[in-house]
Amino acid sequence: MSFDYTPILPAHVPAPAARWTGFPEYNFVGGHIDDATVPVDDLRAAIDRAMVREGSNLATYYLQSGPQGYRPCREFVASKLKTYCGIDTTADDILLTSGSLQAMDLINKLLLEKGDTVIVEESNYGGAFSKLRALGVNMVSIPLDDQGMRMDALEAALDDLVAKGIKPKYIFGIITVHNPTGTILPLDRRHKMIELAKKHGVPIFEDECYSDIVWSNERPPALRALDDTGIVIHIGTFSKTVGPALRVGYINADWSVLSRLIAMKSDAGSGALEQMMLSEYCPDNFDAHVKRCNAVLEGKLDALIQSLDENFGAAVHYQKPPGGIFLWVKLPEGVKTSRLAEVAATQGVAVNPGPEWSLGKDSDDWIRICYANPPIEKIWAGVAKLADICHAEFGVPEFSGNIRR
Amino acid sequence: MSFDYTPILPAHVPAPAARWTGFPEYNFVGGHIDDATVPVDDLRAAIDRAMVREGSNLATYYLQSGPQGYRPCREFVASKLKTYCGIDTTADDILLTSGSLQAMDLINKLLLEKGDTVIVEESNYGGAFSKLRALGVNMVSIPLDDQGMRMDALEAALDDLVAKGIKPKYIFGIITVHNPTGTILPLDRRHKMIELAKKHGVPIFEDECYSDIVWSNERPPALRALDDTGIVIHIGTFSKTVGPALRVGYINADWSVLSRLIAMKSDAGSGALEQMMLSEYCPDNFDAHVKRCNAVLEGKLDALIQSLDENFGAAVHYQKPPGGIFLWVKLPEGVKTSRLAEVAATQGVAVNPGPEWSLGKDSDDWIRICYANPPIEKIWAGVAKLADICHAEFGVPEFSGNIRR
Repeated sequence: MSFDYTPILPAHVPAPAARWTGFPEYNFVGGHIDDATVPVDDLRAAIDRAMVREGSNLATYYLQSGPQGYRPCREFVASKLKTYCGIDTTADDILLTSGSLQAMDLINKLLLEKGDTVIVEESNYGGAFSKLRALGVNMVSIPLDDQGMRMDALEAALDDLVAKGIKPKYIFGIITVHNPTGTILPLDRRHKMIELAKKHGVPIFEDECYSDIVWSNERPPALRALDDTGIVIHIGTFSKTVGPALRVGYINADWSVLSRLIAMKSDAGSGALEQMMLSEYCPDNFDAHVKRCNAVLEGKLDALIQSLDENFGAAVHYQKPPGGIFLWVKLPEGVKTSRLAEVAATQGVAVNPGPEWSLGKDSDDWIRICYANPPIEKIWAGVAKLADICHAEFGVPEFSGNIRR
Repeated sequence: MSFDYTPILPAHVPAPAARWTGFPEYNFVGGHIDDATVPVDDLRAAIDRAMVREGSNLATYYLQSGPQGYRPCREFVASKLKTYCGIDTTADDILLTSGSLQAMDLINKLLLEKGDTVIVEESNYGGAFSKLRALGVNMVSIPLDDQGMRMDALEAALDDLVAKGIKPKYIFGIITVHNPTGTILPLDRRHKMIELAKKHGVPIFEDECYSDIVWSNERPPALRALDDTGIVIHIGTFSKTVGPALRVGYINADWSVLSRLIAMKSDAGSGALEQMMLSEYCPDNFDAHVKRCNAVLEGKLDALIQSLDENFGAAVHYQKPPGGIFLWVKLPEGVKTSRLAEVAATQGVAVNPGPEWSLGKDSDDWIRICYANPPIEKIWAGVAKLADICHAEFGVPEFSGNIRR
């Protein structure tokens, strides 16, 4: 007879995971990237050089670099933060993490308690919402427009919280290539955001996980670059540029914060090989690699857009984003995307329904389509299949191409 | 002016970490291994083969294997558990983690709440104690003898808890190469331990992090091998055999537990390269590698023992362990090891003072000396220096070699 753990589990443990059964045939979810852009040969050469030089350091925790992570990798991150988004920092103020998700967990663990309030963009990374819900934290959401978070709404929300006697713990923002809309917050709003944060004494938690993926290869300075008081905690990752399976993310913050995050990172370091490999590969190759990836990804986005236009016609609405790996699409009136995603999943088409990615009232009108991983022919076939399913379930789109269904 | 985070931090956040300033000259702490035993060339070949075959899978989370971790690596773990400690399991019931520390954190997070009680060996891994303290969990400690945890004491403690109406959440044990004593619990006690666990309906959390390091290369079956009810949750690691910097550990448990641990693992997987490398390296090389390491380590242990005898004479007591990477040493009467470790640290000699590693009343008589990493000449020099410091501070040892100090 099996021992039953159920009676001894604390209340509110998450539901058990289901057995993983592989990716769906048309996989438009998850922050995967394009297989063909992984620079396998250069990465092989990089990890081999690193192993020759200091493979025997695997014998010690932290590769002779201490709990912040492999120093040469931190040095590259610091230089990248300078050249890519204007943050003037050093390896001493970087903590390497197991992807930006561990970074997020650490920051939440440091700052948040049950019952706390945080400010979030109304549409946002679904995982951020789930993590905050699991912690029992209240979310105050700020509406977006076609340039990102609205500063008038942020100001009103902060004032409203003051009136209620509530001090939010942070303002969370994915403001450079926002998830899911892809917008890049303009510079004047960035300055305003910092001004508001300072006025109210509320830290900003800036998540730049997609910010390297910009078609123009240009972007405004990070919030952390525009502030010299340490009120901004900045995180990023190599997941979307070199590969999500690597699990290398980072936190850049003032030492008063970073030193506490290090103390809370209870896993004795993140994987060494990835840090060794990136520190060899990136200094000479990262810039050109990112530009190559961005060209490929914009091509895939164009294919997605064409396939949506072809299959859904004028019934869908979207704004072509300046970067990223996903498109946020408003479906025709009458379509409930939570239902659509559920039915599509049973037929091998995976999309994120709006309610997972947005707290907005109209969230069930939207879906998020990740296009970076599927080959272009799969994008076309998957979108066609999604249109079929949508039509079968909701009677729209009425036209696909010029053909009435 | 710097933004001050202090007012917004929840109570009881840990103290900030200090800047890492490198390892001490005589480093007898930390689960490091011998640099020279890291099989660098074979590991280079292994990761290169894996990258050639499926490097492009780095583009997807989880390397096409789902959230439990890279399947070929899980398959090796399952086969190793069978041949090394008799557990009949499959890759389906393995979860790969960022070292066994993440495994421990996940299990604690699943099972424990503030105010809960767990049963632990009286001397034990200091990190396990700190994690439990940070969670606000009460520890009931079971005394050890020269073979490990005393079953009469475990039985009495369980009965006593029943009488008090307290149901402990688990019995934690590092029973195969115990940390810090190095003992291996005999088979009859293992059977007794499972019998007691079942009688009281209390799960066993079995940590086999050092169990591959046995001079005879033979060991009794794991507790999980002796039970078919799922009452044992088993964890292990590659840290002590291939390298701690890798951060590859694992959990083996019934699906009812594992599926919940997977749901709580919120970092989207642990590092891919280590899992790829190990799955290529281990099937053909792990057995011979471990035997080679064990021979080297036993040689270092002998050097440590000789240097202790030479420098401390009859004033110290220890039991030569059948395996592991540390020696648990009782210092001469009058020595307070918490003080000794503090003074030694200022002079470049790092040892674990007993109170960090034991809840016993006499804990301040003991130190833990990790001997795997320092070269033999450093072991000799470090122990000589420790004896000097001990003499200067406490007047003992009176003799070093045949020379009165």
